[in-house]
Amino acid sequence: MIARYADLLPPETLPRVHEASLEVLERVGILVRHPRARDRFRDHGCRVDADRHVVRFPRRVVDDFRVLIPPTFTFRARNPDYDRTVPTDSLVVSTASSCPNLIDADTGAERRARSADIARIAHLVNALPGIDVLSIPVLADDAPPGQFSLSRVYPAIKNCIKPVKFSLLNPTEAWQIIRLGEAIAGGERAFWDRPFFSFGYCSIVSPLTMDVDSTEMLMFYAERGLQAYGALAPIGGISAPLPMIGQLVQMNAEWLAAAVLAQIKRPGTAQIYNHLPVVADMRTGAYAAGAVETGILAMALAQMARFYNVPSGGYIGLTNSPIGDAQAGYEKALSTALAAAGGIDFMLVGGLLEALLAFDYGQLVIDNEIALMLKRARQDLDMGDIARAVDEIDAVGPGGMYVSTATTLERMRTAALLPDIAERERREAWLGRGGLDAHARALVRAKRLMAEPNPHALAPEVDARIRSRFDDLVAGDSLPVESWKALLAERPRERRTRRRSFAA
Amino acid sequence: MIARYADLLPPETLPRVHEASLEVLERVGILVRHPRARDRFRDHGCRVDADRHVVRFPRRVVDDFRVLIPPTFTFRARNPDYDRTVPTDSLVVSTASSCPNLIDADTGAERRARSADIARIAHLVNALPGIDVLSIPVLADDAPPGQFSLSRVYPAIKNCIKPVKFSLLNPTEAWQIIRLGEAIAGGERAFWDRPFFSFGYCSIVSPLTMDVDSTEMLMFYAERGLQAYGALAPIGGISAPLPMIGQLVQMNAEWLAAAVLAQIKRPGTAQIYNHLPVVADMRTGAYAAGAVETGILAMALAQMARFYNVPSGGYIGLTNSPIGDAQAGYEKALSTALAAAGGIDFMLVGGLLEALLAFDYGQLVIDNEIALMLKRARQDLDMGDIARAVDEIDAVGPGGMYVSTATTLERMRTAALLPDIAERERREAWLGRGGLDAHARALVRAKRLMAEPNPHALAPEVDARIRSRFDDLVAGDSLPVESWKALLAERPRERRTRRRSFAA
Repeated sequence: MIARYADLLPPETLPRVHEASLEVLERVGILVRHPRARDRFRDHGCRVDADRHVVRFPRRVVDDFRVLIPPTFTFRARNPDYDRTVPTDSLVVSTASSCPNLIDADTGAERRARSADIARIAHLVNALPGIDVLSIPVLADDAPPGQFSLSRVYPAIKNCIKPVKFSLLNPTEAWQIIRLGEAIAGGERAFWDRPFFSFGYCSIVSPLTMDVDSTEMLMFYAERGLQAYGALAPIGGISAPLPMIGQLVQMNAEWLAAAVLAQIKRPGTAQIYNHLPVVADMRTGAYAAGAVETGILAMALAQMARFYNVPSGGYIGLTNSPIGDAQAGYEKALSTALAAAGGIDFMLVGGLLEALLAFDYGQLVIDNEIALMLKRARQDLDMGDIARAVDEIDAVGPGGMYVSTATTLERMRTAALLPDIAERERREAWLGRGGLDAHARALVRAKRLMAEPNPHALAPEVDARIRSRFDDLVAGDSLPVESWKALLAERPRERRTRRRSFAA
Repeated sequence: MIARYADLLPPETLPRVHEASLEVLERVGILVRHPRARDRFRDHGCRVDADRHVVRFPRRVVDDFRVLIPPTFTFRARNPDYDRTVPTDSLVVSTASSCPNLIDADTGAERRARSADIARIAHLVNALPGIDVLSIPVLADDAPPGQFSLSRVYPAIKNCIKPVKFSLLNPTEAWQIIRLGEAIAGGERAFWDRPFFSFGYCSIVSPLTMDVDSTEMLMFYAERGLQAYGALAPIGGISAPLPMIGQLVQMNAEWLAAAVLAQIKRPGTAQIYNHLPVVADMRTGAYAAGAVETGILAMALAQMARFYNVPSGGYIGLTNSPIGDAQAGYEKALSTALAAAGGIDFMLVGGLLEALLAFDYGQLVIDNEIALMLKRARQDLDMGDIARAVDEIDAVGPGGMYVSTATTLERMRTAALLPDIAERERREAWLGRGGLDAHARALVRAKRLMAEPNPHALAPEVDARIRSRFDDLVAGDSLPVESWKALLAERPRERRTRRRSFAA
């Protein structure tokens, strides 16, 4: 319900950043390694240096194509009730992707992730109201040959009713996934009527380079009208200029270049102004994804996205901490809150630790709570009626109590977010319940949720259809670890406390 | 450097909140328990119900006096170099006050705080660049009879070079503290030329009540031109209406009433629109100081303060967690980042856990890092020059590296905040250093800082002057626990890593 988002940059700076980006595209250009992409750029008015493979953009070309980008982007789910559109749905929150490792929920050790982990994460995402989109967070180390991405996507889509988003290596993989989609939809036409996957790609390798594989996928998705968006991830001081304005100008030029190619392939292709801007910790060159600078740059980039009237998004809310401790808490909450106040539409935030290296179940439950808090600040909250408020203040009077007024009783469940993880009782009560820290409580909650049956798994007949089409497919089921089931017998604290309500 | 702060409320709502507050003051009024205050209100045009002690404010009275409030408030330090003025100095951050307990830095147990703890906290605050003001966080359980507040203020002012702020019980205490100030300043005139204490008081007991003691102190400070500000701490659903707009209208009326009294006593008295708005967790009635609603209301209240052209402040960044875990991290960072983006000028944030119950040394060091991150977003950062950025992007070219450009080398120490507590290296490196979580690392850092000599303790001759004036005074020295001194032998990580810089 923020009436007006914070502006990091003075409004007069935005056209200057735009102009500077046009100058970069015209004067410096983009190194485009994909021959067919270079041809398309040339066909539409760009100048191509045939030896150096550098494409230079007359500003007219950029301005003509960028205005074709629609103002919204829809993440489709296999059940359309779970579709999410940015910016219409205000703040849309996704898990973050794609790390190789996972913190084992029982041993606490970091290990390679497997397809069964993805199935469980998908199941968990169903149960977390703050998480709207499953961007598949980990790789599947047990993928059979030729099924690198299928072994990630199948467990995800089999178990998750929310929109699923992922990256693919090449068109061969894409056709495999499209066949999976057709099997779920019940046929080719049914799938293509409403393709319910969202795809990500690395639009640019900073600085100013489009590689072969990602560019191939960008064109593949755009040609076929599949929902897809890129990510820009330059590191200030390494692959981008260090002063923030330089990083911003470069990122904006990079975003424009990739956006122009998508519009050339299919005018009206939906896009997200999506990014992961990091400024390196120049003491060690460390990749400081949890730093405040990522939040500050996200505010500036959200402004640029508004300038272009396109949805903004980002990997925002990462942490460098290897565990779910205070650092993970403050790094994730601080950048995301700045970006939320700055008007970002979409956040890839949930579940990762150690920058982009490891997924953690407990952290995803914590990030769900952070997401709910941010959404609270962004929701169109019913603040109540001013005249009625004055009447109530009059009726209660100086020194009175509001505990059992009609308005209080009417709003006691909705006036404030009622969190699941945050401890709100006194130390003695907390110690009496075992004195677990927030991450340990979140991990118990994750296991309990995953020990419940998954009401949203694909129907057996649909699954049989899929399995008949793919040999050697991973199992893809969300099976709880045996010991987690014992947690179901414990009554969760949040239900217990809700029962003995204050006004009762 | 946020060019324009976020507005929670549409701008047209602000005059409506103001009007509704005027209506509350005119129609409902304030219960004023202090006879002399009632007289002053009556003398200046208010209507006083002599039986019920309710004061009703014609709107002209409110509007005439509130415009007298100056737009700035200065926290004075005994060394004027450390003075801080809101909003001139952008975001000013203070420790939070005044809790009874402290988490022992060695045992981890919660215990009553003592004057020696206050001396150490004061010493620690000197060493934390993100903390501008010492609002004395704890009570002194060892206070001799008749020195309840002196036993807090003396150890604080003896050790802290930054502005010190605190509350007092009554004018007797105030005269004792003024005598302390005169002893430090070297005489009555020297003290009154530049009184270097800031005072807090509870301006209103919500709803709409001014009690005897706090109102006495409000008038005491205003009459003498001492820097002081009140706090409003209504709890939505208990001592304020539950819908947010009702809480906002009531708080605004309460702030106006107390502000009017201060201006009646001395026109031009500096004030802060300062608050701690909480919405109760109606499941249990718990005091949810760490909830996102506190951040959301802080944004709205910062807007009201801008509407009145007065500095805004608040207890923002509290947590309900009993330990320095992920919950403490995300609750503190989320509300403060929302408030910072919403333009709050002053935050009482540092060091508390378990809402307002316990101070923790490690948490103060973490909160210092959060404060530095927030200040980074609010500082007038040098973003660099756009034309120069384009030239550098051109010089480096597509696929190039920025690691050792002139601009990178020039800015590598300043382009990003270099935090002390955040872990940025990989899991193996972290485990190799002991695998401490952020709070444990912060606690080690706190002890190391407190084991160093305090360069800012009062000069022995000044201290002798003080001690000669007060019998039975607590010692007030910051003496490290013996075991902390061993930490000085360990070279701190942040210095070590700074040495092997990336570009070297």
